[in-house]
Amino acid sequence: MSRALHDAATGTLFGVALNYKGLLEQRLAEFEQAPYQKPPVKPVLFIKTPNTRNGHGQPVVYPKGVERLQAGPALGVVIGKRATRVSAEQALDHVAGFTIVNEFSLPEESYYRPAVKAKCRDGFCVIGPELVPVAQIADPHALDIRLFINGEVRQQNSTANLVRGIAQLIAEITEFMTLHEGDVLITGTPEGRVDVQPGDQVEIEITGLGRLANPIVAEQEAH
Amino acid sequence: MSRALHDAATGTLFGVALNYKGLLEQRLAEFEQAPYQKPPVKPVLFIKTPNTRNGHGQPVVYPKGVERLQAGPALGVVIGKRATRVSAEQALDHVAGFTIVNEFSLPEESYYRPAVKAKCRDGFCVIGPELVPVAQIADPHALDIRLFINGEVRQQNSTANLVRGIAQLIAEITEFMTLHEGDVLITGTPEGRVDVQPGDQVEIEITGLGRLANPIVAEQEAH
Repeated sequence: MSRALHDAATGTLFGVALNYKGLLEQRLAEFEQAPYQKPPVKPVLFIKTPNTRNGHGQPVVYPKGVERLQAGPALGVVIGKRATRVSAEQALDHVAGFTIVNEFSLPEESYYRPAVKAKCRDGFCVIGPELVPVAQIADPHALDIRLFINGEVRQQNSTANLVRGIAQLIAEITEFMTLHEGDVLITGTPEGRVDVQPGDQVEIEITGLGRLANPIVAEQEAH
Repeated sequence: MSRALHDAATGTLFGVALNYKGLLEQRLAEFEQAPYQKPPVKPVLFIKTPNTRNGHGQPVVYPKGVERLQAGPALGVVIGKRATRVSAEQALDHVAGFTIVNEFSLPEESYYRPAVKAKCRDGFCVIGPELVPVAQIADPHALDIRLFINGEVRQQNSTANLVRGIAQLIAEITEFMTLHEGDVLITGTPEGRVDVQPGDQVEIEITGLGRLANPIVAEQEAH
């Protein structure tokens, strides 16, 4: 990743589940069952732990014994200034810039509890290639997001379809916890997650943010 | 916290849910319902994010608008050496030492998904007062753990009642992710969590590890 991004995105990596409209609609039936009985009223957060950090061009390891691995294209928002109980109106003042995130996961049957075991394998959060300052992106809610596997488009969407926009996410999260400089909000992966295999070249392109590329490699025997 | 602990426990804070036998037994009926239909077969992990870090003697803020806040006495295991796919037999070689953790949470109706919103408020993970080296604790699975509120014992148990012991936890977690020097395993809070109120003095004592004390204070108005 670029030096600017490496220096900027040093904090906690917060994932937001179910933050694309199409995905939420697909899951509505599930939310009407026990234990929730209704769709979530607040952002459903999960954490990508520090061992998941990975960079542009670096291999992503397909773990042994795993049946499926999925890419997770997402717009990343890098916090630039400490944020506690900020309003949606002030939220963007706390953002340093934007980047691409590929939030790899093992597929889960349930969204009730994004499992550490599915989300937090080593190298499962690729961030990069650049930190693009806020001022360079005219409208972060009108960016095309495309996933390519071996050069072929396999998933596409637009940040216009976020359930909660960037300012609302920051406002709702900082109602109950402080975001710090260097924290990254992974604003969500659209519906239609795509399986990847060892040998695949996985790339994500977001308007104005460049292209984030990683090869998938099989896990080696323990050494 | 002591300098040694401050320098040692710099990494990711991993919580383990449902790791006391009495607690798991209380919850068995719940696990037989949808969506799980059976008790968890692997450790249920959650993350205490870096904003939750807090030390011995420091105030713990009772958030505004919250109905209940609970203390969470736990044995903390500080990792001393990188651990990937280690066996239970080798696991203790990767431990620097032990400490006390008070893992504060808002009570949750369900254990299906320990929510970031309930677990990750600022200052909700107190660690200390000391890092006690492994060699000083004869048997970490025979330690009394006691919670005092304003000097009165309100919860007590023993690490003899852990569902998964320390070596097994490390082995099962490092099957799928790497633990790093400075990471902390919060080995679980016993059944019978106790509510605390602003003005309370909360203390946890674990055999051989000293006493971790914190006052609960009301949240001030935004400034």
